[in-house]
Amino acid sequence: MNVDGSSMRTIWPNDGGRSVTVIDQTRLPHVFSTKRLTTLEEAAIAIESMVVRGAPLIGATAAYGLALALLEDPSDAGLKSGYERLLGSRPTAVNLRWALDLVKEVVAALPVEERGGAAFELAGKICDDDVAMCSRIGDHGLALIEEAWERKSRTGAVEILTHCNAGWLATVDWGTATAPIYKAHEAGIPLHVWVDETRPRNQGASLTAWELDHHGVPYSLIVDNAGGHLMQHGSVDLCLVGSDRTTATGDVANKIGTYLKALAAADNDVPFYVALPSTTIDWTARNGVEETPIEERDPEEVSHISGRDEAGAVVTVALAPDGARVANYGFDVTPARLVTSLITERGVCEASEEGLASLFPDLT
Amino acid sequence: MNVDGSSMRTIWPNDGGRSVTVIDQTRLPHVFSTKRLTTLEEAAIAIESMVVRGAPLIGATAAYGLALALLEDPSDAGLKSGYERLLGSRPTAVNLRWALDLVKEVVAALPVEERGGAAFELAGKICDDDVAMCSRIGDHGLALIEEAWERKSRTGAVEILTHCNAGWLATVDWGTATAPIYKAHEAGIPLHVWVDETRPRNQGASLTAWELDHHGVPYSLIVDNAGGHLMQHGSVDLCLVGSDRTTATGDVANKIGTYLKALAAADNDVPFYVALPSTTIDWTARNGVEETPIEERDPEEVSHISGRDEAGAVVTVALAPDGARVANYGFDVTPARLVTSLITERGVCEASEEGLASLFPDLT
Repeated sequence: MNVDGSSMRTIWPNDGGRSVTVIDQTRLPHVFSTKRLTTLEEAAIAIESMVVRGAPLIGATAAYGLALALLEDPSDAGLKSGYERLLGSRPTAVNLRWALDLVKEVVAALPVEERGGAAFELAGKICDDDVAMCSRIGDHGLALIEEAWERKSRTGAVEILTHCNAGWLATVDWGTATAPIYKAHEAGIPLHVWVDETRPRNQGASLTAWELDHHGVPYSLIVDNAGGHLMQHGSVDLCLVGSDRTTATGDVANKIGTYLKALAAADNDVPFYVALPSTTIDWTARNGVEETPIEERDPEEVSHISGRDEAGAVVTVALAPDGARVANYGFDVTPARLVTSLITERGVCEASEEGLASLFPDLT
Repeated sequence: MNVDGSSMRTIWPNDGGRSVTVIDQTRLPHVFSTKRLTTLEEAAIAIESMVVRGAPLIGATAAYGLALALLEDPSDAGLKSGYERLLGSRPTAVNLRWALDLVKEVVAALPVEERGGAAFELAGKICDDDVAMCSRIGDHGLALIEEAWERKSRTGAVEILTHCNAGWLATVDWGTATAPIYKAHEAGIPLHVWVDETRPRNQGASLTAWELDHHGVPYSLIVDNAGGHLMQHGSVDLCLVGSDRTTATGDVANKIGTYLKALAAADNDVPFYVALPSTTIDWTARNGVEETPIEERDPEEVSHISGRDEAGAVVTVALAPDGARVANYGFDVTPARLVTSLITERGVCEASEEGLASLFPDLT
């Protein structure tokens, strides 16, 4: 998407296929800077230290990382050690293993001297495929935003509430929940996005607000507490969020707090849409609330926060009393009954077993 | 309540009736300190600068402030100027005007030489009356916590979720929503309180967590996003919040985000109780969502936050991109249909016109 008028992805190749550049997301929203990755180790550290984050972007970076490893040492031993170094950089990311397996399988069959170049090319294709998938999610979601615009008789602006960052910064381009927003903006539909700050890690305030701001989409940052009030007063036309994991029955695990917004949407007859690539569907899971493991995260994410001080330095400060007891849950589950529709790369469907089966007969 | 074993109120008289001491709440939770107020101006500044906050405590401080004014200048002119100075210190607080009117009415009828002492004594009575009212709310709410304890067959601990600070720091002692919690703790019922941090001003993290911590009530601080997840998993036995304004029909205006918790409570069959002194009931209002004005507050409450840096200094940092557009709403309204019961100083009733009329036949 655009950063102050320049079109940009989150990752792109350099030096005729000898290095790759990424946006350093650890410094957003306070500083925009990029990092050039020239070795396996630099790529692994970029994933570990969350310079890049978001499952699709982690996968893409890992693929390029393995290509950089093979440019240094294309032997079977080099392939094996590069694969293992990268796989350990964020152990729980599904796309990481998927991208590494794909590259490994293709290059293992090639002569040693062709491996580096082929891997680099394949990493580029993984990126392009991700962009195409997000773009299709955007096209399908655009139709829903157009419907909302018609329901308002094309007056004012379509008011969209989103939670966390399912944005282009989490993917290679477009994002998932943001793809329909960018497509609608480009189609000339007037929009305004309510951006939940998304405590505790503030991905909404840090990343989604930054994305929309720099692409030129009108938005307002709000606290996570505000969405219910806005929906009660008719200030939200639709909600649009991403998903970390969706069950075969349409239950949606997403960033903690998503469920509360879905409840408010249902209570106020506001459509609640979830955008997701089909790669995040767990076809074996049937009950999201019961089957999704409760991830407890570092208490310091709640008790402390980072921000920019008056001198411009990014510092961490304590918010809670010294020694405060803290509980920190990463995700919650929105039952399918609260989800109006799922938006996938193959189209829009009801959040149900039947709905998903209609779009993915080959996977169910 | 207790601060590390010492019993304490938020405001108390000194010097045989020549000054008053308050807890400096602007420095909590990072520093516990007190401030002695010896003049009208010091009292007015304490209210303006939020050294004291919470409607009941503001009223009590204003009453003492007017007494300090009369000790300096007991003339009619002194009474008038003191009254006006204090009334302007927080223009929207209902209890402020109520307390000032009460003191003014009593002392205006007295000889000049008796006014200062009488006002000081009356301020003390306003404090005692507030403590008694909160204590009664606590007694009535205690019965509901006892019921929850019985429902659990007296095993584990009663899990209570609260939002914002309707605590003793907002009153003279006991608090409103916290009064039943302190009473239950003193009655030996094992408790654990989930404390919403309550963005944007973080009164939960700063004040409620501090109160419970120093009184010795077990608690965990959570982000505002977490409550729905906890209720889905059976980790909350009841919700207990305060109210800034309640309609004659039982709709509850309270800190932004309260409505989202009430939705989650209803969706998971968790009782949702609201504790309130009857002085906060607006007997003329019948529809909370339609009739409660939408207060928009300073965007910096969302875009910036204060915390303790590594050196121990309290500093303000920016959380959002430079120039981010922010919307900041102070309150939301929880419709009566989502409120299980109201807890008042006269007892517990249904959140409805009939329920309130049964307790307050003299006011309806």
